[in-house]
Amino acid sequence: MKKIIVTGAAGFIGSNLVDHLLSRGHEVLGLDNFSTGRRRFIEKATTHPNFKIITCDLLDKGEIVQYFQGYDVVFHLAANADVRFGFTHPRKDLEQNTIVTFNVLEAMRAHSIKNIVFSSTGAIYGESKIIPTPEDCPMPTQTSLYGASKLACEGLIQAYCEGFDFQSWIFRFVSVLGERYTHGHVFDFYKKLLNNPNTLEILGDGHQKKSYIYIQDCIEAMMLGIEKEKDKINIFNLGTPEMIEVFNSIEIIKKFMNIDPKIISQDSTKGWIGDNPMLFLDTKKINSLGWQPKFSFRDGVIKTLEWFEGNAWAVSEKTSKERL
Amino acid sequence: MKKIIVTGAAGFIGSNLVDHLLSRGHEVLGLDNFSTGRRRFIEKATTHPNFKIITCDLLDKGEIVQYFQGYDVVFHLAANADVRFGFTHPRKDLEQNTIVTFNVLEAMRAHSIKNIVFSSTGAIYGESKIIPTPEDCPMPTQTSLYGASKLACEGLIQAYCEGFDFQSWIFRFVSVLGERYTHGHVFDFYKKLLNNPNTLEILGDGHQKKSYIYIQDCIEAMMLGIEKEKDKINIFNLGTPEMIEVFNSIEIIKKFMNIDPKIISQDSTKGWIGDNPMLFLDTKKINSLGWQPKFSFRDGVIKTLEWFEGNAWAVSEKTSKERL
Repeated sequence: MKKIIVTGAAGFIGSNLVDHLLSRGHEVLGLDNFSTGRRRFIEKATTHPNFKIITCDLLDKGEIVQYFQGYDVVFHLAANADVRFGFTHPRKDLEQNTIVTFNVLEAMRAHSIKNIVFSSTGAIYGESKIIPTPEDCPMPTQTSLYGASKLACEGLIQAYCEGFDFQSWIFRFVSVLGERYTHGHVFDFYKKLLNNPNTLEILGDGHQKKSYIYIQDCIEAMMLGIEKEKDKINIFNLGTPEMIEVFNSIEIIKKFMNIDPKIISQDSTKGWIGDNPMLFLDTKKINSLGWQPKFSFRDGVIKTLEWFEGNAWAVSEKTSKERL
Repeated sequence: MKKIIVTGAAGFIGSNLVDHLLSRGHEVLGLDNFSTGRRRFIEKATTHPNFKIITCDLLDKGEIVQYFQGYDVVFHLAANADVRFGFTHPRKDLEQNTIVTFNVLEAMRAHSIKNIVFSSTGAIYGESKIIPTPEDCPMPTQTSLYGASKLACEGLIQAYCEGFDFQSWIFRFVSVLGERYTHGHVFDFYKKLLNNPNTLEILGDGHQKKSYIYIQDCIEAMMLGIEKEKDKINIFNLGTPEMIEVFNSIEIIKKFMNIDPKIISQDSTKGWIGDNPMLFLDTKKINSLGWQPKFSFRDGVIKTLEWFEGNAWAVSEKTSKERL
């Protein structure tokens, strides 16, 4: 049993991770500012004797440092995870990702916590020329403030490993799907089609190629990577062998909802500025430890849509874009 | 004639660049907080009708934005350039490099200035396995907070190029030597030997391999890169074909000072935590534009030592370490 802090504990990935860690017998302290996290995602966890949640702002280093006393490891998942709107509020990625990560590292250092698990992103590869993209691809250039901020976080974490003898596990995710997923194109399409099943306007030409991983596959891969790799700095791509187009998602959603909307697409190969028209990660490293995804992209979308059906409240709330 | 802002204008590289830009007929506004910059470095520039200097804190975005109005290009050189002491004050690199760069980019955006020239560093390559290290080497891990912060700056600049249509020239320097150089091992050794010509204690085993470039070679390379390369993002390593050991510097300094001190070295292959025992950059890209260094390492050290002799005030001032 370990004493674990999960930042962003009420978020999509965070809350699923909390449930998983509790099921493995760990003691978990969740930290969240509830800007995008939701109380209902941790409803079940809060009934567990080994779980505590504290509402706090990780930008306030003076406040948060006290909460870190006595813990063994930090899963740092709190972030502005909305890659799309970086250029409408450039300060947000700097603050919520880079500076917050610095504050978490400093709070850890103040209490001699040496182990950090970090949720990074395939977005740091920008528009890599090497597809599928391995962890040690040629230095990419950043195409989004989100990717730039996550790369900055990785750099900070790596430097703390060198200078302060930290140990880190950095996971570069593709997009994640599943229960409690509430932003991204599957969410947007489903919501739009609920309102108007006859027409669906999409961003870009629909041929943007993307990779997705199902949340439980993602968590299993993280736990395996942490358990098996013990270098000072351990970096893993997490994704699946499938590369899909936005149109593939639409087909699955149409069948699930039993509708046949007219699709209105755009000329652009990118859905938005900084969108990667092609993100596909080489996952040989995590595969070599014995991990393979158990769920296909289709499985993941259907599980997500089933969860939407059973949780209409989550779909009817304002999206992060609408909350801007 | 262009209207140019130089941040860090009173620093070692900044003040030499200011002199160069003025000699080319440009109008220059220098911004400096004089934390390490020195009034005497810009004494000559301040007599020039095309030069203005403003003392300001680039962390104060609200203040600085006004100064950017009406300029064409920003040479952003202001930084905490002291790689060695990052782990004694971790916030400094984050603030003075990452956050200051963000503020500069935002001030530029406020006034529709689209062109930025940035002084990055070979330190972002950490301990690269590929020597000499090219610009597109495999993604390195960061070994210093300085390197991590400069990588974060590069990411921000690249994202601004993608999202806000900026154009950037990013130069990754090896160490720079020459007139107004006042920190680094040649400075430290000279100063120690002035005080005690009989003994010299050095950090590490003296076999750390380093690269140096002479300041005027460095500036010429930058100007050529800016003039000839016009991609959205232009990244150049700047260094020379020479790789020297710390002991090589000591030999040149001994002869110049006409002394023969006893050298006391350490067992460690690194001078300090985060020191790169080997930094050697592949400069084929800048060479292909027609640039070659005109001065050898030996030339650079001797020019530096001659400048020390003529500027005892600069040597007798407290070093940045002593000012900590």
